[in-house]
Amino acid sequence: MSIHTDFLDSLTPSAIRNITAQIRNKAAEGIKIVNFAGGMPDETLFPSSELAEITVEAIKKDGGKALQYAASDGYNPLRKTISELMEKFQVKTEFSNILITCGAQQALSYLTRGLVTPVDTIVCENPTYVGALDTFRTQTDHIVGIDMDDDGINTDKLEKVLQTQKVRFIYVIPDFQNPSGRCMSVEKRNKLVALAEKYNTFIIEDAPYAMITFNGNIKPAIKSFDKYDRVIYLGSFSKTICPGIRIGWVNADQKTLQQLIYLKMRDDLQVTNLSQYQVHGYLSNYDFDSHLDEIRSIYAVRCQHMVERVKESFPSGSKVIAPDGGIFLWIELPGEMDAEVAFGKVFERNIAYVPGTYFFPNRGNKNTMRLNFCTNSIETIDRIIPEMGKILRECEEER
Amino acid sequence: MSIHTDFLDSLTPSAIRNITAQIRNKAAEGIKIVNFAGGMPDETLFPSSELAEITVEAIKKDGGKALQYAASDGYNPLRKTISELMEKFQVKTEFSNILITCGAQQALSYLTRGLVTPVDTIVCENPTYVGALDTFRTQTDHIVGIDMDDDGINTDKLEKVLQTQKVRFIYVIPDFQNPSGRCMSVEKRNKLVALAEKYNTFIIEDAPYAMITFNGNIKPAIKSFDKYDRVIYLGSFSKTICPGIRIGWVNADQKTLQQLIYLKMRDDLQVTNLSQYQVHGYLSNYDFDSHLDEIRSIYAVRCQHMVERVKESFPSGSKVIAPDGGIFLWIELPGEMDAEVAFGKVFERNIAYVPGTYFFPNRGNKNTMRLNFCTNSIETIDRIIPEMGKILRECEEER
Repeated sequence: MSIHTDFLDSLTPSAIRNITAQIRNKAAEGIKIVNFAGGMPDETLFPSSELAEITVEAIKKDGGKALQYAASDGYNPLRKTISELMEKFQVKTEFSNILITCGAQQALSYLTRGLVTPVDTIVCENPTYVGALDTFRTQTDHIVGIDMDDDGINTDKLEKVLQTQKVRFIYVIPDFQNPSGRCMSVEKRNKLVALAEKYNTFIIEDAPYAMITFNGNIKPAIKSFDKYDRVIYLGSFSKTICPGIRIGWVNADQKTLQQLIYLKMRDDLQVTNLSQYQVHGYLSNYDFDSHLDEIRSIYAVRCQHMVERVKESFPSGSKVIAPDGGIFLWIELPGEMDAEVAFGKVFERNIAYVPGTYFFPNRGNKNTMRLNFCTNSIETIDRIIPEMGKILRECEEER
Repeated sequence: MSIHTDFLDSLTPSAIRNITAQIRNKAAEGIKIVNFAGGMPDETLFPSSELAEITVEAIKKDGGKALQYAASDGYNPLRKTISELMEKFQVKTEFSNILITCGAQQALSYLTRGLVTPVDTIVCENPTYVGALDTFRTQTDHIVGIDMDDDGINTDKLEKVLQTQKVRFIYVIPDFQNPSGRCMSVEKRNKLVALAEKYNTFIIEDAPYAMITFNGNIKPAIKSFDKYDRVIYLGSFSKTICPGIRIGWVNADQKTLQQLIYLKMRDDLQVTNLSQYQVHGYLSNYDFDSHLDEIRSIYAVRCQHMVERVKESFPSGSKVIAPDGGIFLWIELPGEMDAEVAFGKVFERNIAYVPGTYFFPNRGNKNTMRLNFCTNSIETIDRIIPEMGKILRECEEER
């Protein structure tokens, strides 16, 4: 006997974790994959030795307290530091408006459980983060993707949906979007808040890439325009410090936050205490800004190389969006190509990417793909992208 | 505007976290509370410097990998080590039957979300862990408490319920139960598995205190009698290593485990990677057994002192169960006393405990209370318990 319910039966492996598992299986056989698929940052750039130092210091100084149970809302000194960090995004807030979560993913999970029932509709960008779609689908099948322009979600199309349907919340990734790399304009950020107020709905602003900007220009968060407490902001250190210690946060009005805290008490009591000390120690005593500058400059060059090699070698008619930050490159192959079919051929040659169709709530857009440009060296990018381009051109000819 | 749903409105602070918050508020005013309320272990006994050493070593050896994203099922070397640890409870299992969770609490949350709908009935011990009740209540109001004998849940009363109601699962804490300190007999462990099979239900065995046995005798887990894959075992290092790094585990059949992993992918992706390295390093390279022996001997003496002082000083007619392990002492005051009313008077004198009524799914049993005996020194116990006894006798006289 195993446990069994319709709900559990409806869960399948997440598409990207599935690709990751395939990569791990090949690795176990000793086969090295050039991985452009995952959503991870470059681990050689993590402030590893600094985190080790901080851990030793925290345990020496605070002894058992750093390893004991703690409050569900989070470690207050970290909440304070994060509330100050929010000024980077032109958000003025207090430590008591910050909840620490196990990555921003956990906040998505809490908001989905807390807000969404099977009859509710969620609106997102088209395409959007596949991990958000998987989480939303645990509660509802009604997910409406709104097409994007180069400057973010198409607000006219969004308003048409809001006029005809009751929408529980609008989920957006305004900065260097996963997967498209696009950045939402300031005008649209403002407009989005007005639409949420007008149509009595909420915005979930997921901003893990906001600080990874190649030109140093951090846009004001949608939250910074939020006069009405309509925006729930999700932050994360997964892409800027490291993901394995699992520290994200929610910035919201007090009542919203309090309800999420009550949910956290029933879910896992609290985030790892030591991880919170680590992030607080790092932000307080080390130079986070120059660390960000290092990441930005290295990722920018890798991105530039990947864009150039894609333009040179991918099937003619391919479109690539050259982003100003983040970690992802979004590519549209010629109209009738299928990146899911091509994946098989490319993966045979030990190269991995993510077919773009997974990022669309209603699938379709089979000709798209997402490449992570941040984890491989320039040399690997310069050598492998042309090889990948050749395989894709062969796929195109075979059709 | 704040987010608002009937579900979120139904959530209130957990009773014990509420008491903890009151203690923290007094502490912020500089008032020191003698805390017998919380469920925490003694932080002065944590292997703190060992965990610091392991962290430095793990980061030095595995570099960014220890801080990177990792698999949702957990760090394989730790899963292997835990599968071997399960032999202490006479359970033979494989690493692939172990899922790492953020404390056992997260496993309770996943099982509740995965298995329980609002029409389902859950059976538990009467009294039981308040954090489990709070989690169960997020999905159903149908929670049936079954009275306990000195050797655990009354299986005759349990069978009567199983005969008349479809029960989703039976939740038990067989070892040094929270809050009663009772231990389930081997006969009843066996019987419980047979009942689950006969009535087509499941058992959730929550075993965070199993290793904290004062006489060194670890009972076989209910899971060790599980021929039918009817038992889902929850383990935790929160009481034996430390709670702040949040490492628990599930031991179950492959299919059950796989479904929980799919849920974890949608919830928080994975447990903190570094915490998993820390526990694995500790179990592999340090003497966990002698650490357990140290905890056991210190807690045993504190327990003995508390039992003696309670017997000497509490209102006559009070009953105390002297446990053979764990961290809690369960007390029944004379029939008509109300431990929730008395709490106010005791807390005025800066002493905290938990009124027992919170641990009963249908409340009642107002004359009970739970004391944590493991975090205070013998001197404090010898001094404060008689003071508390005096206040309780005054409460009794006022009635």
